[in-house]
Amino acid sequence: MDRRSFLTRAGIGGAAAATAAAAFPAPAISQGNVELKMVTTWPKNFPGLGTGAQRVADRITALTDGRITVKLFAAGELVPAFEAFDAVSQGTADMYHAADYYWIGKHPAYAFFCAVPTGMTYAEQSAWVGYGNGQDLWDELGSGFNIKSLLCGNTGTQMAGWFKKEITNLEDIKGLKFRIPGLGGELMRQIGVNVVNLPGGEIFPALQSGAIDGADWVGPWNDLAFGFYKVAKYYYYPNMSEGGAALGLGINKGVWDKLSATDQEVFKAAAAAENSLTYADFNANNSRSLNTLVDEHGVTLGHFPDDIIDALGEAAPGVLESAATDDLGKRILADYTKTRDDIREWSQIAEPVYIQDRARVLG
Amino acid sequence: MDRRSFLTRAGIGGAAAATAAAAFPAPAISQGNVELKMVTTWPKNFPGLGTGAQRVADRITALTDGRITVKLFAAGELVPAFEAFDAVSQGTADMYHAADYYWIGKHPAYAFFCAVPTGMTYAEQSAWVGYGNGQDLWDELGSGFNIKSLLCGNTGTQMAGWFKKEITNLEDIKGLKFRIPGLGGELMRQIGVNVVNLPGGEIFPALQSGAIDGADWVGPWNDLAFGFYKVAKYYYYPNMSEGGAALGLGINKGVWDKLSATDQEVFKAAAAAENSLTYADFNANNSRSLNTLVDEHGVTLGHFPDDIIDALGEAAPGVLESAATDDLGKRILADYTKTRDDIREWSQIAEPVYIQDRARVLG
Repeated sequence: MDRRSFLTRAGIGGAAAATAAAAFPAPAISQGNVELKMVTTWPKNFPGLGTGAQRVADRITALTDGRITVKLFAAGELVPAFEAFDAVSQGTADMYHAADYYWIGKHPAYAFFCAVPTGMTYAEQSAWVGYGNGQDLWDELGSGFNIKSLLCGNTGTQMAGWFKKEITNLEDIKGLKFRIPGLGGELMRQIGVNVVNLPGGEIFPALQSGAIDGADWVGPWNDLAFGFYKVAKYYYYPNMSEGGAALGLGINKGVWDKLSATDQEVFKAAAAAENSLTYADFNANNSRSLNTLVDEHGVTLGHFPDDIIDALGEAAPGVLESAATDDLGKRILADYTKTRDDIREWSQIAEPVYIQDRARVLG
Repeated sequence: MDRRSFLTRAGIGGAAAATAAAAFPAPAISQGNVELKMVTTWPKNFPGLGTGAQRVADRITALTDGRITVKLFAAGELVPAFEAFDAVSQGTADMYHAADYYWIGKHPAYAFFCAVPTGMTYAEQSAWVGYGNGQDLWDELGSGFNIKSLLCGNTGTQMAGWFKKEITNLEDIKGLKFRIPGLGGELMRQIGVNVVNLPGGEIFPALQSGAIDGADWVGPWNDLAFGFYKVAKYYYYPNMSEGGAALGLGINKGVWDKLSATDQEVFKAAAAAENSLTYADFNANNSRSLNTLVDEHGVTLGHFPDDIIDALGEAAPGVLESAATDDLGKRILADYTKTRDDIREWSQIAEPVYIQDRARVLG
């Protein structure tokens, strides 16, 4: 994903809308029915992400029987996509649905609450936030910005991306112009890739014209919709920087604190439900889309060569450390890394081995 | 897991309690505050399963601000563990929290809504129920028993189990007396294992005395608590019959139909939240417990040899077909199998490859 993917669209009318919104009265939650504004970093009904945000908004409304109505604003409707954090922090909006690595400009440690190189999967991140120190650290990070965060979905492991030519070893990828943003981009730069960044909507023409040699986006579902298979035939896995991109519901702390105990439970349940449902939605649709890409569009699937994986692994610790710039960041990095290393001993012998043994016997 | 594990404990006082409960008035949901009775197949606060059931009960109570209070009964408190299904079907209890493969005596196809040999993982089952035909088929199956079911948790991939001696090939396991219940037991019987069934509480003494050579239970968290490492040192993975045991919330259909639209959303959200949280809880605690078993108790972890995996795979289709005994069962088997085979193309290149490549670079 890309924090600037929707900037062009999102920018239109964003500033004007924000000004108007700032004049709205603050929600009076204890005094009867209230409408809360949820901003998102996604276009309306963008598969998996926009649709997941809409489900959370609708669920909170339904669970409170309309006592709280959550009105969703797609990117640019109330504020531009990447002003969602500031809007919620300052109270222009009441909550956001986003991928928290979009906020590394606010604090680099936000990356750990979404996805980092050699980071946690959906299962591991859910364990860390739910039954480890993840929620407390996220709360501490958010307290500096007036934001309370809840885990609210996951894309699952993303694809490494599309290439116009076959990649057989590390030399093949060095010097290629490859679109990938954020820490994932920094990781690729370290192994010699000529990293470029482009908004989502500009990837297709850039691939088509040959201005870039390849690009990452999300996974089969979103990638099929963008039609990249028409201009690049090699599709590699896995994305070593997006083992599972967690999505967050960020709530203005003043709004959160004014919620009754019941309504706080509503928000927690609505977000936890979506954590499972968004991941299920991605898995259901990624599988259908992958089969379409391979069977109908002749895409060549490939596993990134070992020497590329090794080089990415060697560069990863430095990139992780670059996200731990202060005491809190260092504590988050330390707890994240310890949890990942404790839990991966289990992760490595559970689902993956079962899935591979099942593949062995089912063919 | 084992449908008879808690029968001894559960039986005490069960019949008397059921008789008393049958005399209770039916819940009057539309007429103000109501108490609903949730029975479970677990001892009170049994790790992961009993605790997950308690969280769902508490969440429904909290979300409705006490309008609906869910009172949880551990196995045997209101009815014996394995009368939970009948109790809910007949209205003695309002809902149950259980593993639906306990009900294969009611209809063999209930196995598909929990775990079957070479079956789906947590991610896949959640996709099938949430964004495939799984929920509709589960509803159709439940309509014959007056039960509405919701997905409500998962243990994750379970371990194959404990052995007193090392298993290096198929010959080593043939003739061994091994405790494993249900379809998993049938699968092991087909490859020549001398399958026995024992309640959970009888496994430890049977292993200790040498009455059995090995046993399956759940995974590191629950297995550590039972202390099997003291009497068997070889711990194998994966359990080819429990790639991910789904947990279900079964609700009396009359109660469900009387719930308001808001309260149905409450039940759905509470169950979907628990689907994610139980799985996270198991992953957090399985990882901690696995590390304890290996580092502190000197347990030898092993991957089941390939020829055992192959033999289990060869026997699996016949065992699956044995669970499809009527038209509905055949339709469930067909949809389950098709979904698994569509989705596993994605499952096989997503998390497992990422986790292994990460292991490669992290060591």
